[in-house]
Amino acid sequence: MDLEAHVLAANDALAAVNRRRFAETGILAVNLMSSPGSGKTTLLERTVRDLAGELPVAVLEGDQETLVDAERIRAAGARAVQVNTGAGCHLDATMVARGVDVLVPEDGSVLFVENVGNLVCPALFDLGEAARVVVMSVTEGADKPLKYPHMFRTADLVVVNKIDLLPYVDFDVAACVANARRARPGVATIEVSATRGDGLEGWYAWLRALHARL
Amino acid sequence: MDLEAHVLAANDALAAVNRRRFAETGILAVNLMSSPGSGKTTLLERTVRDLAGELPVAVLEGDQETLVDAERIRAAGARAVQVNTGAGCHLDATMVARGVDVLVPEDGSVLFVENVGNLVCPALFDLGEAARVVVMSVTEGADKPLKYPHMFRTADLVVVNKIDLLPYVDFDVAACVANARRARPGVATIEVSATRGDGLEGWYAWLRALHARL
Repeated sequence: MDLEAHVLAANDALAAVNRRRFAETGILAVNLMSSPGSGKTTLLERTVRDLAGELPVAVLEGDQETLVDAERIRAAGARAVQVNTGAGCHLDATMVARGVDVLVPEDGSVLFVENVGNLVCPALFDLGEAARVVVMSVTEGADKPLKYPHMFRTADLVVVNKIDLLPYVDFDVAACVANARRARPGVATIEVSATRGDGLEGWYAWLRALHARL
Repeated sequence: MDLEAHVLAANDALAAVNRRRFAETGILAVNLMSSPGSGKTTLLERTVRDLAGELPVAVLEGDQETLVDAERIRAAGARAVQVNTGAGCHLDATMVARGVDVLVPEDGSVLFVENVGNLVCPALFDLGEAARVVVMSVTEGADKPLKYPHMFRTADLVVVNKIDLLPYVDFDVAACVANARRARPGVATIEVSATRGDGLEGWYAWLRALHARL
């Protein structure tokens, strides 16, 4: 077994432990992945506020450095813990296990794991999540699913964000959706503007359906 | 020596070979790094067209998959070769050496190496370039230099792109520049719109100055 396979096998074993723990406590763990600056944190701030009183939400924030995202989530009203990866380019199952020990999400809650902004490395690492969401913004270009196929290949949902900017950029939503489905046939897609609020009912409906299935 | 240090030391040795080769042939090698979708390829298309007849330009394109970027550069009128990294998250000095063997840039030309879109991994790998340019777009948020400090720490120039979108996004250019300079004190910054053309004279002046110094 080569080194990469060894690292991934060790991670997969720990991810299975996380997954069991989430199942036993009724926690819906969602791994959010994207390029830097696609709007994941803004989407989560809004989600925390809009689902307050309906679903308990907790957030594990991954970044190379800074605590700003966890502070933003706490200001929106949810539990949040920041995990800094230093030179690392992704979260792994161990970091998630340790973060959850500190975060202590309520039983029955939705746990969002906001991965390090990176369309490559996070794709390889199972964290024990129930679902993988890839967020991309319309400013990134519709070709991204073709250029970063590993990331899109394991997505359970593709969220196309910042549609409020569509009038000002050259972005073909239908082409982007078609490209995402070349990587992941039939994958669900939702178009939203996390800042303006368009399309968020679809996002919440998707979350509620997954949560109800636990 | 741990494995990461060993890999980086081997890469650094090959990067030194590349650097000597570029010096001997009067080639200005520029390593362009950014998030996915920041507009590197659009900036290069425009640069190829605008510098035609003044400076010979060649481009080594790095992506996980697809040949689309090299095709765009060729359509703009320059030599281009695509290097696909598969599951890999960055170019290394060996890939650049092999790519240059195929590309054969003219003596005295500007060689742009467009790295894989990723604000983490490419930062660690010297390719033998004369200068490192980090491109970021105003849609990504002004906090990115704080969250990805390794990338900005080695930048010789930060290009803030898509300023045509400033009226539609919440982005503070001065804060972004200040954040970049916390990572890299005194780093030069240029604000441009690669699609509309704003600020490109500053970019070309920076390139000409480096090229004249060879």
